[in-house]
Amino acid sequence: MPNKNFSFEIISQSEKARLGKIKTSKGFIDTPCFMPVGTLGTIKGVFLDDLLNTGTQIILGNTYHLMIRPGIDILEKFNGLHSFINWQKPILTDSGGFQIMSLSKMRKIDRNVGAIFSSHVDGKKIILSPEKSIQIQKSINSDIMMVLDECPELTSNKKKLSEAIETSTIWAKRCKVEFGNNKEKALFGIIQGGLYKDLRIESLEKLEKIEFDGYAMGGLAVGEGQDEMFKILNETVHLMPKNKPRYLMGVGTPSDILGAVKSGIDMFDCVMPTRSGRTGLAFTWEGKLNLKNSKFQYDKYPLDHKSKIRDLNIYSKSYLNHLIKSNEILASMIISLHNINFYQEFMKQIRTEIKNGTFNSFYDKYINVFS
Amino acid sequence: MPNKNFSFEIISQSEKARLGKIKTSKGFIDTPCFMPVGTLGTIKGVFLDDLLNTGTQIILGNTYHLMIRPGIDILEKFNGLHSFINWQKPILTDSGGFQIMSLSKMRKIDRNVGAIFSSHVDGKKIILSPEKSIQIQKSINSDIMMVLDECPELTSNKKKLSEAIETSTIWAKRCKVEFGNNKEKALFGIIQGGLYKDLRIESLEKLEKIEFDGYAMGGLAVGEGQDEMFKILNETVHLMPKNKPRYLMGVGTPSDILGAVKSGIDMFDCVMPTRSGRTGLAFTWEGKLNLKNSKFQYDKYPLDHKSKIRDLNIYSKSYLNHLIKSNEILASMIISLHNINFYQEFMKQIRTEIKNGTFNSFYDKYINVFS
Repeated sequence: MPNKNFSFEIISQSEKARLGKIKTSKGFIDTPCFMPVGTLGTIKGVFLDDLLNTGTQIILGNTYHLMIRPGIDILEKFNGLHSFINWQKPILTDSGGFQIMSLSKMRKIDRNVGAIFSSHVDGKKIILSPEKSIQIQKSINSDIMMVLDECPELTSNKKKLSEAIETSTIWAKRCKVEFGNNKEKALFGIIQGGLYKDLRIESLEKLEKIEFDGYAMGGLAVGEGQDEMFKILNETVHLMPKNKPRYLMGVGTPSDILGAVKSGIDMFDCVMPTRSGRTGLAFTWEGKLNLKNSKFQYDKYPLDHKSKIRDLNIYSKSYLNHLIKSNEILASMIISLHNINFYQEFMKQIRTEIKNGTFNSFYDKYINVFS
Repeated sequence: MPNKNFSFEIISQSEKARLGKIKTSKGFIDTPCFMPVGTLGTIKGVFLDDLLNTGTQIILGNTYHLMIRPGIDILEKFNGLHSFINWQKPILTDSGGFQIMSLSKMRKIDRNVGAIFSSHVDGKKIILSPEKSIQIQKSINSDIMMVLDECPELTSNKKKLSEAIETSTIWAKRCKVEFGNNKEKALFGIIQGGLYKDLRIESLEKLEKIEFDGYAMGGLAVGEGQDEMFKILNETVHLMPKNKPRYLMGVGTPSDILGAVKSGIDMFDCVMPTRSGRTGLAFTWEGKLNLKNSKFQYDKYPLDHKSKIRDLNIYSKSYLNHLIKSNEILASMIISLHNINFYQEFMKQIRTEIKNGTFNSFYDKYINVFS
């Protein structure tokens, strides 16, 4: 599409790992990138200016959650999420499909209609069609939108997975039509197919015919082991279009990210840094630290004395141990911010290593540090 | 006491209202002052550097809570609370007496021993004698310590109140002995006597004989009305030593503070700004705002567009309304910080008005704004 205000270029490559840059009308995104998750329009426990200081260039919003709270009505009054939450950089929204799978008790997939389910907040019946998902994402005014897909639970049932691909392909086409010819926004297709190479390729080929601005791997990190995830990524990611961003949805730990970058993935999102932050789990270059552990009770040292985010260095591990045990908000605030900052430092280092051609030794050094 | 590293001077007076300055070895405190409450060594939901930026010059720690968590052992390893939480300005600690009254189910006052009660965390039996309270406050290493007192619940029973004064006086003497001749720290006595002028005067006179570095009004803001509190303050505060700081414990709303300053009080502490922050109640120059109220659902304006604390102005009331309804941590973070900042602005304005001799008209303007 000519003159589209969304583009992707590869700057450097280290075997399959790619250093790139996404251009959007809201700014650049250096890839491989990590997108903190702002489920309800807030990265839980983190001030927006602190988030900017971590180097975060794009955040993710959840269509399903946002359509329920604050609701489309309010988002439209603000011309979208950016201005509602006051975040001027890019936003990616998922389609709502994954949350319907994971949160709704009552749900039904009707290929001709969409997903029919009940709100996890008030039980109200909601129909989410492919068109509706895109309309909501337009109301959210996100820069990168995702097609509505059927995201099956972890299964080895090929028939089920094939049917999900069939449904997802039909829905992807309908999403593309609804999305229209929008020069300012991007629409990504989502590849399904579980852990089967042939199904993944089938799904990918069907989506490529529709033509999207980027392609995502869906239906992973849903309970399979890391080895299985790495295997299917290694078998298929390099077959995804080279000139488009490749996004692995809902992943993951720093080592998950390392392995996926090695197979050629460019984009990640995960609740891990903030969810861990709320349970006292910190990510550092030395690995994961469970700050609840009483071995930190007398530890006078900060999480990372080299950290430059805010003045987080003034807080000792002993103090954090106390705050967590006392269920104090400040613990979540400090550790969530620390973790997001660590993730962004980690991504920055990955980008540097790809540029320097040293990614493989970086991979070897850190692949087992976070497990 | 010569060369004591704790002093108080009155700079200006507007009728009974006093503008003053407390000097401690950890820095100055401009009075009338407000001390945010750091129950467990954290002002709930507020980063320390943000707290400093509100102009907070002293915080309060709760001896009862701190002795249970993190415990004296850990505080001593850090040479006290300042270094444990990394707060280098003055800290005042209460004696634990009030929390024993309000939190412990099983408790007994034995004049010869102290307060005998069970921990609200694990039910363990704890004896808090006057000596023990001071020892713990020394371990906390606070700059201003409070005597252990018997703080009766709101009652019109004069016999009960007299007995509490008797016990409190004996304990105050024992605290003074335990406190010793400490040039770096201050010890404050606590006046009891409920809503009776004669009992308050009796208590005050007994404490004055022991000689303290400052005097507090205890046993107020325990359920009596504001009128009753103002009445007893008007009748007695001016009788407290003029050359010592006067502290009204656990108070209060901005209008409570206004009335108490008018009667000559210099120091305040209260959980209100942070506790309200966690329930969506904001204090502004226009009064209290209940941000949960759906009338704010579409309100695009910030809490206070003139606010200079952080970048809190980027958050609209509509967004805050959404965050509160979604039970998001960020709501507590924003409103708690806003409220503390408002309280400190309010105190600063009070000090300016006393200096300018305009305190009475300021009082008239704002006394009914926050009720």
